[in-house]
Amino acid sequence: MQTELLSIIKEAGSMAKERFYQTSLITDKSPKDLVTDADREIEEFIIREIRKLYRDASFFGEESGLSESDGSRLFVIDPIDGTANFIFGVPYFAVSLAEIIDSKVTRSIVYNPMTEDLFYADSAIAAELNGKAIHCSRRKELNEAFVILGFSAHSENIRRYELEWDDVFMHSRKALPLLSPSLNLCSVAMGKADAFIDFGCSYEGQVAAAYILLQAGGSVRNYEDNTYDFRKTGIIATNGRLKL
Amino acid sequence: MQTELLSIIKEAGSMAKERFYQTSLITDKSPKDLVTDADREIEEFIIREIRKLYRDASFFGEESGLSESDGSRLFVIDPIDGTANFIFGVPYFAVSLAEIIDSKVTRSIVYNPMTEDLFYADSAIAAELNGKAIHCSRRKELNEAFVILGFSAHSENIRRYELEWDDVFMHSRKALPLLSPSLNLCSVAMGKADAFIDFGCSYEGQVAAAYILLQAGGSVRNYEDNTYDFRKTGIIATNGRLKL
Repeated sequence: MQTELLSIIKEAGSMAKERFYQTSLITDKSPKDLVTDADREIEEFIIREIRKLYRDASFFGEESGLSESDGSRLFVIDPIDGTANFIFGVPYFAVSLAEIIDSKVTRSIVYNPMTEDLFYADSAIAAELNGKAIHCSRRKELNEAFVILGFSAHSENIRRYELEWDDVFMHSRKALPLLSPSLNLCSVAMGKADAFIDFGCSYEGQVAAAYILLQAGGSVRNYEDNTYDFRKTGIIATNGRLKL
Repeated sequence: MQTELLSIIKEAGSMAKERFYQTSLITDKSPKDLVTDADREIEEFIIREIRKLYRDASFFGEESGLSESDGSRLFVIDPIDGTANFIFGVPYFAVSLAEIIDSKVTRSIVYNPMTEDLFYADSAIAAELNGKAIHCSRRKELNEAFVILGFSAHSENIRRYELEWDDVFMHSRKALPLLSPSLNLCSVAMGKADAFIDFGCSYEGQVAAAYILLQAGGSVRNYEDNTYDFRKTGIIATNGRLKL
């Protein structure tokens, strides 16, 4: 079923890309909650298509919430992770899908339709980008490290990061604010960035990519804990060597 | 010569794209050195190729500085505008080229090789994305506006933006920090973002795209002035309707 799942996500990505080039997509849902029509449409498409493959699967989606079923198989969907980028015309957003069986992530797909970069991991294959194995960087020292922080131009959030991560602000090689938890984690998984810190990122935005990162040799914990539970929000991820 | 110039920039973009995927391979070279190598190589390629078309042209490039000639035609090159994104694995960087004749911008090309989006403007054609006319948005009110600010996670810079643009931080619909002056200006030119503010962006990073924005109906001024001189650094750009 792997080929079929990948096809569904690529098709979902094509829908997102098509919408990206159209203008005036923004619904007036809520000024702070920049959700697009595309989100809903893509999520519905993914659920409909996966149901044809797995009749008794459950789904958790950003738009539709949890749709429970009798089976033990759950798919977690983020139809467009990085909606702010999508809106601003920045080709840094992804369709994200995680398969969870008996409370364990078993497969992950993160797809950026703008570059057609497809990140994949399962227990047998470890982590891949476009079919090639990827690994985390080996940088250990903060002054060599490229760190991603999950903030926009929101003073209160920025202040919290500065307060809690002044070391990163002061001593990392470069720290960049970027809004797409799934692609940020994949950037660490492929050895471009060395760490990603986000106190606010959602469950459905990070679950698939966190598994890809783990399979690429990285480490992950929840923002508030020293352990990792994929059902929680907020994440601290590294290449497995850098101490944060 | 338009077709030839576009081909040169697309070819330069392919070189950048190739390097982008190479740097995800783990090497002992620092990412900063890799991007500097790519910068230099691409700039040299562009100069060498354009010289075949315009023997007496002068060039100004990020890496090579000003190479003067007797002619009145100057090309300003930014081989990779958005190097931080390039390093972090974010497909939001561009090759930028402006043609200047007798101190006036006459043609601009901004090309994102990752999406193959090509922005173009000249005095006859106005502004285009992939051959189709583009225009700025019509949003007038700050609380509807999507604003781009040119900062990374650098506390001192953030503080300056907050101080000088507290209105944007507090009252815009969404403000996003993004590092690629040329693509940020193109985002305003195609009506995705409504404004872009950057006190630090370089001459060679903004000159081509500022012309594209002007040709798309936008307005531009230098950060420190109420007028626009493309030879200065720092920029405040809007869709032409939003008052900043």
